[in-house]
Amino acid sequence: MRELKKLIERIIDRVNVNLREPPFDVGPYIHNLVPLGQFTRFYAFYGLTADHPLHFHFVNSTLAGSYFLGKCTVDHSVLYKSDIRGDELKTAESVFHHQGLKIPLHDDEEILIKDSYLVKTLVHNYSHDPESPEEFFIQNTVSLQYANIHGSPVEGCFLGPSCTVDLTTLHDCVIGPYAYVQVGELAHRFVEPGQVWISGGGLFEFRYRFSSKVLDRYIEVKTGSVPCGIFMDFVEERKEDFQQVFSATQSKPPIPVPPGASLSRFAVVKGNSQIGENVLVAQRSYLEDALLGKGSSAQENCYIIRSRLEGYDVTAHGGKIVDAKLGERVFVGFNAFLRGGSDRILEVGEGCIILPHTIIDLEEAVQIPARRLVWGHIRTRRDLEANSLDLKELMRVDGEIKKGSMRFRGSGAQFASRFLGRIEHILEANGAFFDGRKGRGHAQREQHISFNIIQPYQEGNRKGLYPTIDIRP
Amino acid sequence: MRELKKLIERIIDRVNVNLREPPFDVGPYIHNLVPLGQFTRFYAFYGLTADHPLHFHFVNSTLAGSYFLGKCTVDHSVLYKSDIRGDELKTAESVFHHQGLKIPLHDDEEILIKDSYLVKTLVHNYSHDPESPEEFFIQNTVSLQYANIHGSPVEGCFLGPSCTVDLTTLHDCVIGPYAYVQVGELAHRFVEPGQVWISGGGLFEFRYRFSSKVLDRYIEVKTGSVPCGIFMDFVEERKEDFQQVFSATQSKPPIPVPPGASLSRFAVVKGNSQIGENVLVAQRSYLEDALLGKGSSAQENCYIIRSRLEGYDVTAHGGKIVDAKLGERVFVGFNAFLRGGSDRILEVGEGCIILPHTIIDLEEAVQIPARRLVWGHIRTRRDLEANSLDLKELMRVDGEIKKGSMRFRGSGAQFASRFLGRIEHILEANGAFFDGRKGRGHAQREQHISFNIIQPYQEGNRKGLYPTIDIRP
Repeated sequence: MRELKKLIERIIDRVNVNLREPPFDVGPYIHNLVPLGQFTRFYAFYGLTADHPLHFHFVNSTLAGSYFLGKCTVDHSVLYKSDIRGDELKTAESVFHHQGLKIPLHDDEEILIKDSYLVKTLVHNYSHDPESPEEFFIQNTVSLQYANIHGSPVEGCFLGPSCTVDLTTLHDCVIGPYAYVQVGELAHRFVEPGQVWISGGGLFEFRYRFSSKVLDRYIEVKTGSVPCGIFMDFVEERKEDFQQVFSATQSKPPIPVPPGASLSRFAVVKGNSQIGENVLVAQRSYLEDALLGKGSSAQENCYIIRSRLEGYDVTAHGGKIVDAKLGERVFVGFNAFLRGGSDRILEVGEGCIILPHTIIDLEEAVQIPARRLVWGHIRTRRDLEANSLDLKELMRVDGEIKKGSMRFRGSGAQFASRFLGRIEHILEANGAFFDGRKGRGHAQREQHISFNIIQPYQEGNRKGLYPTIDIRP
Repeated sequence: MRELKKLIERIIDRVNVNLREPPFDVGPYIHNLVPLGQFTRFYAFYGLTADHPLHFHFVNSTLAGSYFLGKCTVDHSVLYKSDIRGDELKTAESVFHHQGLKIPLHDDEEILIKDSYLVKTLVHNYSHDPESPEEFFIQNTVSLQYANIHGSPVEGCFLGPSCTVDLTTLHDCVIGPYAYVQVGELAHRFVEPGQVWISGGGLFEFRYRFSSKVLDRYIEVKTGSVPCGIFMDFVEERKEDFQQVFSATQSKPPIPVPPGASLSRFAVVKGNSQIGENVLVAQRSYLEDALLGKGSSAQENCYIIRSRLEGYDVTAHGGKIVDAKLGERVFVGFNAFLRGGSDRILEVGEGCIILPHTIIDLEEAVQIPARRLVWGHIRTRRDLEANSLDLKELMRVDGEIKKGSMRFRGSGAQFASRFLGRIEHILEANGAFFDGRKGRGHAQREQHISFNIIQPYQEGNRKGLYPTIDIRP
């Protein structure tokens, strides 16, 4: 495994050079994070469809357990069980609109991962950066377990576990565990653990920060060891179910898949689960006694357990829903954690927006009224009061409000419409409104996908590395 | 599937142009041979090891169910469940010796399959042709079920089902069903069905031909339909066992694998089967209540059922052994069919050479004495007399002999030593003599292999075709 060790050290050096002021050493976070033997244990795979322009190019990298869809180059990088989903990459000759500018593309957009180390990271590309419209790059970057990189390139960064970089271009930043940033662009910044920060180009700013006491219970990071806490335990307890799913090359759907719906063969389905028309269940999502009504979706790394989603509900990457009932059109953001109990069901009224990185972990039954914006840490009905706001009320805000640990400045209407517009986009992109002819989206396109499996060298100096692979139409 | 249909028509035209004098139309043999839907059903795969120079290159082809090992290019071709085994390809800077000539290679040898249609064909490359030492090519060629192409290039040919082209370069030839040729080079020839023809550059010539009555029982070919007969039925009856084996991505060996042995995870193992040290069981071989003693081998498409192989026994590609006991160092040649019964065991004495394309299908128990050369069609002890010769006796032959339908001319000693030398080479190449340090061969090298799975487009014009794939170290 000589070459793999060299590669890892080289990545550490490159990331550290980017993070030298002030100095931040990513080495201790990576050394021993994934035992080297693991890199030969899991196959990687890529999806092949008639809908996505094709180009996969893998050079001097390890890709253990990772999944690729859409054009992607991985160069001198270490990927471990990461999902690289390029199914919304822009194509050549399309025109990218940005603040009144029209930017015609001269080539298909491609994801480029270079000199980076991504562990269980989700990369999804609904691209946002006007500066590199043909390239969605992740360079000189380390990201830890269940981080999300969504919609923008990052370079020279360290992303802590369960953090999310959403529609934000990053240069030389450190993002703390479970922090969420959606701020357009950041350079040379340290975003503190548990910081939820949404900023809309001077129009509004939302900030909430988890206390370190709460945060440490859910996700704690010590250099030199694997992150721990409730989030990690939750996933760990269900790991074996995924191993079964990944050990078969092809399988029949375990439950009926209605018209327009797609159920990834790399999803876990247990108990009495049902999905409706136009439902999208992505790879590495987990359903147990879950009912997903028409047009709902469960994205990568979602867990939906003993819960009912009425219809047109969106569960974004990494969302977890346990013992809950969701009305129609509820949005559950990235890495949100919603857990009721059999004796304390969580009910979420229709049209609610559960902001990304919200923790609802109930000590008593809670009913969230329809059309509320919800954030923060909620255990009781009382917490709900301090951590939510009626959407109508939000839309009237123009100035500054504080509620619990949340601060908001600017136009509530702009903030709300940004989220509502995005939810609409997600439903459309997922094919939730497909009528048999119009409105095709991911749910319909991913019905006809084939998966190709790739594995590393099992012996010799290059053990754990993959050969150079180039795949074109 | 528009593109796949076009590709097939194009291959037919190209092969027919080669076979225009006298005109031979391969079209009727190919049309409807494999229903087009089958081309999307099976994944292809390639083996990755630290031992074999790596380069796979697949262009505008379908590869359904095929297996690749060693450098290989497939270009504008249709492969269906074929095995392309390039594990004996010569490497750059090695020197190829041929009749006193020394030919240094300027590059790694590579298998090149171009404008061809191969169904369930085995290609193995222990290369023989001095004229193209860097390229083992199969071009403008159609081959049907269970044909073997071994050791030499072919171009412009039609190979009938269960035929074998062994160490013979072919240009523009038609080889009939179950014919076996080992004659160095042939051009513009029609080799009749069931013809077994071994010729050693003027030193000797062996000829035997199955009667059409016998042949039709075992393998019958009518244009426009799938071949039929005992050989096809035999394989068809055991097809489902392979489907199970191919439906898992990774599996633990079903029986213990002793030191130095390798058991392909794509082999079927049933009943009470055992393998000894240094045994090689290749992909797509089938063991049922089979005992393989030390250093024995079962190559691709071999079936060994209710039989005991004492040790250092070689079962070449496509050999079938049922209800039999084999002493040590028995060689069972390509596509030989040896079938006893529970009440009529076939016993084969040590050191016997069962020539390729021998059919022993017993009506009574038969014991073959040690060190005999065996050929033809044998059902009874009496048939054995007419279809075998003591090896010592053979070595004394210098001239012409006839025995039953067999004719031999030339030096028996040369003929025998050619076979004995080759058996020794096979045992060495397979690693039968591995002592823990020296004598590594296929059995030892194939223990550490990883398999990468590739699949075709599932939809659209290119449905059934594979993307362009290039894989390098």
